[in-house]
Amino acid sequence: MSFSFGQRYRVTLFGQSHGPSVGVVIDGLPAGETVDPETLNAFLQRRAPGGRYATQRRETDIPEILSGLVDGKSCGAPITVVFHNGDTNSGDYASFSSVPRPSHADYPALVKYGDAHDIRGGGYFSARLTAALCFAGGVALQALARRGVAVGAHLCRVGAAEDLPFDPVNLTAETLLAPGRAAFPTLDARAADAMRAEIERARMDCDSVGGAVECASVGLPVGLGEPVFGGVENRICQALFAVPAVRGVEFGAGFAAASMRGSAHNDPYILQNGQVRTAANHHGGVLGGLTSGMPLIFRAAFKPTPSIGQPQRTLNVRTGEETTLTIAGRHDPCVALRAVPCVEAAAAIALLDLML
Amino acid sequence: MSFSFGQRYRVTLFGQSHGPSVGVVIDGLPAGETVDPETLNAFLQRRAPGGRYATQRRETDIPEILSGLVDGKSCGAPITVVFHNGDTNSGDYASFSSVPRPSHADYPALVKYGDAHDIRGGGYFSARLTAALCFAGGVALQALARRGVAVGAHLCRVGAAEDLPFDPVNLTAETLLAPGRAAFPTLDARAADAMRAEIERARMDCDSVGGAVECASVGLPVGLGEPVFGGVENRICQALFAVPAVRGVEFGAGFAAASMRGSAHNDPYILQNGQVRTAANHHGGVLGGLTSGMPLIFRAAFKPTPSIGQPQRTLNVRTGEETTLTIAGRHDPCVALRAVPCVEAAAAIALLDLML
Amino acid sequence: MSFSFGQRYRVTLFGQSHGPSVGVVIDGLPAGETVDPETLNAFLQRRAPGGRYATQRRETDIPEILSGLVDGKSCGAPITVVFHNGDTNSGDYASFSSVPRPSHADYPALVKYGDAHDIRGGGYFSARLTAALCFAGGVALQALARRGVAVGAHLCRVGAAEDLPFDPVNLTAETLLAPGRAAFPTLDARAADAMRAEIERARMDCDSVGGAVECASVGLPVGLGEPVFGGVENRICQALFAVPAVRGVEFGAGFAAASMRGSAHNDPYILQNGQVRTAANHHGGVLGGLTSGMPLIFRAAFKPTPSIGQPQRTLNVRTGEETTLTIAGRHDPCVALRAVPCVEAAAAIALLDLML
Amino acid sequence: MSFSFGQRYRVTLFGQSHGPSVGVVIDGLPAGETVDPETLNAFLQRRAPGGRYATQRRETDIPEILSGLVDGKSCGAPITVVFHNGDTNSGDYASFSSVPRPSHADYPALVKYGDAHDIRGGGYFSARLTAALCFAGGVALQALARRGVAVGAHLCRVGAAEDLPFDPVNLTAETLLAPGRAAFPTLDARAADAMRAEIERARMDCDSVGGAVECASVGLPVGLGEPVFGGVENRICQALFAVPAVRGVEFGAGFAAASMRGSAHNDPYILQNGQVRTAANHHGGVLGGLTSGMPLIFRAAFKPTPSIGQPQRTLNVRTGEETTLTIAGRHDPCVALRAVPCVEAAAAIALLDLML
Repeated sequence: MSFSFGQRYRVTLFGQSHGPSVGVVIDGLPAGETVDPETLNAFLQRRAPGGRYATQRRETDIPEILSGLVDGKSCGAPITVVFHNGDTNSGDYASFSSVPRPSHADYPALVKYGDAHDIRGGGYFSARLTAALCFAGGVALQALARRGVAVGAHLCRVGAAEDLPFDPVNLTAETLLAPGRAAFPTLDARAADAMRAEIERARMDCDSVGGAVECASVGLPVGLGEPVFGGVENRICQALFAVPAVRGVEFGAGFAAASMRGSAHNDPYILQNGQVRTAANHHGGVLGGLTSGMPLIFRAAFKPTPSIGQPQRTLNVRTGEETTLTIAGRHDPCVALRAVPCVEAAAAIALLDLML
Repeated sequence: MSFSFGQRYRVTLFGQSHGPSVGVVIDGLPAGETVDPETLNAFLQRRAPGGRYATQRRETDIPEILSGLVDGKSCGAPITVVFHNGDTNSGDYASFSSVPRPSHADYPALVKYGDAHDIRGGGYFSARLTAALCFAGGVALQALARRGVAVGAHLCRVGAAEDLPFDPVNLTAETLLAPGRAAFPTLDARAADAMRAEIERARMDCDSVGGAVECASVGLPVGLGEPVFGGVENRICQALFAVPAVRGVEFGAGFAAASMRGSAHNDPYILQNGQVRTAANHHGGVLGGLTSGMPLIFRAAFKPTPSIGQPQRTLNVRTGEETTLTIAGRHDPCVALRAVPCVEAAAAIALLDLML
Repeated sequence: MSFSFGQRYRVTLFGQSHGPSVGVVIDGLPAGETVDPETLNAFLQRRAPGGRYATQRRETDIPEILSGLVDGKSCGAPITVVFHNGDTNSGDYASFSSVPRPSHADYPALVKYGDAHDIRGGGYFSARLTAALCFAGGVALQALARRGVAVGAHLCRVGAAEDLPFDPVNLTAETLLAPGRAAFPTLDARAADAMRAEIERARMDCDSVGGAVECASVGLPVGLGEPVFGGVENRICQALFAVPAVRGVEFGAGFAAASMRGSAHNDPYILQNGQVRTAANHHGGVLGGLTSGMPLIFRAAFKPTPSIGQPQRTLNVRTGEETTLTIAGRHDPCVALRAVPCVEAAAAIALLDLML
Repeated sequence: MSFSFGQRYRVTLFGQSHGPSVGVVIDGLPAGETVDPETLNAFLQRRAPGGRYATQRRETDIPEILSGLVDGKSCGAPITVVFHNGDTNSGDYASFSSVPRPSHADYPALVKYGDAHDIRGGGYFSARLTAALCFAGGVALQALARRGVAVGAHLCRVGAAEDLPFDPVNLTAETLLAPGRAAFPTLDARAADAMRAEIERARMDCDSVGGAVECASVGLPVGLGEPVFGGVENRICQALFAVPAVRGVEFGAGFAAASMRGSAHNDPYILQNGQVRTAANHHGGVLGGLTSGMPLIFRAAFKPTPSIGQPQRTLNVRTGEETTLTIAGRHDPCVALRAVPCVEAAAAIALLDLML
């Protein structure tokens, strides 16, 4: 049951990277909700491979609907979609069950599942499953938009390159959604150039580089979230760590708050256009697990892609011999780039689940 | 149902700060497990108020067992415990439903629950509920110890003061548990002095200060955790954000990984005393949501206590008038200090839930 | 987690018959709902022991509220209540862990939990836990009543004695609630006499007798219930079999439908006072798991009390020796009698959980 | 989330009768379990349409595996399967959203989902979803068989015709599985003839007839089941009522227990071949929600197929006009017949979920 998330908008992922397909069952979308295929496919394309900064492997990121939609509307039954796996070369992966790739899940999966584990392409640890996550997220984004809620994200760091942050107080839906429509998902065009350069340098070095994504939501009602274990942060984290390579998450001031005084961190309430708001937003739009009406803001850290072209020290875990591993094929030099829509998807799923 | 966490070791918290009591029901501890009251009370005392650096409010942190234990052993039925609330002065809180305290949950709770909300003492947003969380965590720590697993934490930052980090590769249970036995929960005595000074300065300024807690676990089996939504990180986060004032969490290299290259971040496998281990531990003991056999390490950031003695700008949300609020009473100047056992409790609950 | 039921109105029972107390945590009742103590206590008294036809053991069926209610209203936090166990004589039960009582849970509980099991008074298999179930049910009944829904039940069979059935088509709330207000819970006073006689004969014979309860609900909205596993029947059954001694359940025509033709069983739709209704109600108010707007009707069968005063053949399961067991003390000669409010409670919990 | 069942062997159904497909995701089968396709298909064929006594509609009951199986073994990822819908004629169903078929879910579904509901073929209320349920059940049956547990069922009643009951005390796996291998699923060949005659008579009358299924399981460990809401009965019922047309369920003596004395109903413990058993089995193998080691036995009642060829009174619920409806096409005259493997599937899913 660990492939399922949510209580009202319940998402169940399935599939392995090199099995017949990956997909998702969505249970709980009310009957009569429109799912616009063009909007959805545009969203899925942001995650899809291709382009200079991403893996060249051709995947067929075209969703096939198996149930739940009639004439483009939800009928109340679970929505099921599959993405058929195409271009898979299982031969590449045979050796990894003996010689695990550093910082991949190969070794713990071997111990957990034994030889029954489908290690090919990472099996169900593969980022390929984020296609299905993004489908569920894309449907959620449309349902949220109909309810006046926007969710967007941008790449806020790649190596040493940084983007401008979202304005935590005056953020608008327009600004929020701009990076997702840009060729490279940043607020600042110069940051895009610097990040592209970081990624290109890593790629030329047969290396990879980490990054971070900032995600926000505006238009949320006040009081969304359920204490104690169902707060907005609890739920977003539970969904977010389903995205491979996430290593940390922080809301509002986040880790910086650890060095702050209360007098500086506390956000005074003010009245603005007749609405209760706060003058600053160190709290990131969530207090006691509940939304405050200010923009919800969090950041997620991504590790560098573990698959790199350089030779790496590792171990044959069956024989105990130390060995050197060189991973063939092309891999995203920076997973954080294609993770931007995945973070939006995880947030949208968690938020819609709380709203329904 | 948001007051419940877990699938096998299921914890349901209840109570309000100024109601008759707070408590917890634990469903799923196997029959026949010993719960040693002395060990448990020693653990609870680490969270209990009192002392110069913590709130002076006298609470009765003595658990009363209502069910589930017979002669100090679990009988298979849910274990229920209550902590009766003593020293409560509800009069202090009457005004906060109109004039919300900055960076508290008062305002979103008012919107969500209306006047039915029990705002006294923070209601169920109160840190008082962590007494119950720590009870469930203390029972979990004993069950984990019997299974060879140790969980411990220390205060790694208060304002500008920092403790030494846990050794991510060679961490032992002894080192892990040392801070919890010390008068002040750090690895380094000088760090303790610096942190005490930070807290004392904040207190003298009628202010508060943030902090961070590093938590680790050794002895975990390899492969613990469930992909995709049930990974070790997903579950720990879901439990951890039940602790008030947490603003971020990171595993292993965490946010630092966003600036790293893959060649530096990847952890080579080595053989050590016949065991598969990694030479470094940037991955924090968890790969693909599964434990790797290396120490599990994460850090949690805590915001400064929002209740401070200085006058603060805020709003009467019923009349729309701006006003100034001065919060009376004594409050912990640094919530992170008493949060150290709470972080251990959250981790222990999540880990035992995965192990059973 | 098997002590919990529900998704929106989540009920977690705890306690053992001879431990300090039994109780319940209710998570999910919206803030601001009134819980009238008199109505609740009147409902609890229907289940309480005492009187000629029920056990003489004095229990303290006075609920103590631990959390969740402020000035008689729910505040949004879980409602927790305990019933302290009084008059318990643990000595009575020592032998049953070796010599299990026929048709009690003693033997499977011994195998499952070993000697850690709290066999005294039946432990958590005790009907004593229905005090807590009835509390949660009583709160649900009040919340349902505010939403225009009535739930009621009567004893429809004891041994060979039968009551009149509810009118499945024209049932009113008044008729529905009448048996619960009567001295003996039947529709027909002669049936009450016949049932009393059955119970009295069983008691005089140091024996017990089975029975059945018919329960109904009117005022439910059309379309309540969730296909496929969350239908009205699925949920009611899941709650109902928490009541000890239930051996079967049937909706509408129930087992009689197995002998019927479709042309006789099908219920024609008609218009009555502008409302869509059916001319007959063989479907018991539920079609495809969803309420139809007709009265919801089901019956539950109860086995005879397994504790009887006659000597019984059994086994010492530790030594393998056959032996004779005579159970001392007084026990309800007919559990179905006090089960009437328990059935209402189970139904109310399941229905409110679907409605919220 | 109501399309999901189970905590450890978690089954999520999807699909509509006249959508592209129906299917199921199974999450929780341990890695390395063999799924034999021949055994599975033989089981699925028992449910498949065709033959004189069942609907003539040609469905493609050939499962397509989408994930989770590698070389015939589970790999730890969810197992997903679809059955593509073939021979569907949506035109047949257009009118039922205005003129609901008596004793179908059309009317409550219209109220619940409005015009977005996919009424064609019954949508997700269709018995077509039992193909997916049987797939999950067939996999569970194989996993149970490897653990020494057999589950089988027979048609015990059709109209006035009755089969012999299972021997509740001396039931063997061989006897249990015999009806499923027979041309007609009864223990007694004469009962098969009588039932065939009942069905044929109903068919000739353009009518349908109800029935009942008795299901049993042998080889279960003692103590399976979780008090209070997770008992064997609670879980089986929750799964069983997902099978369309079930109207009641009873365990052991069931409704007959309501008329019995305790002295007759109680089952004395005896020692048989060194094993603790009971001399009779009125308790149906389950005490206090836990298995006792005796055969688990329950019966489920099925209503007559609501779709009959005779003209029926009904209502145009949009105009309020009374009208007459004649349902075209061919339909199973007795749903209980094809429900026999569905009952086994529901029981197997519930039991495996408890065992894992």
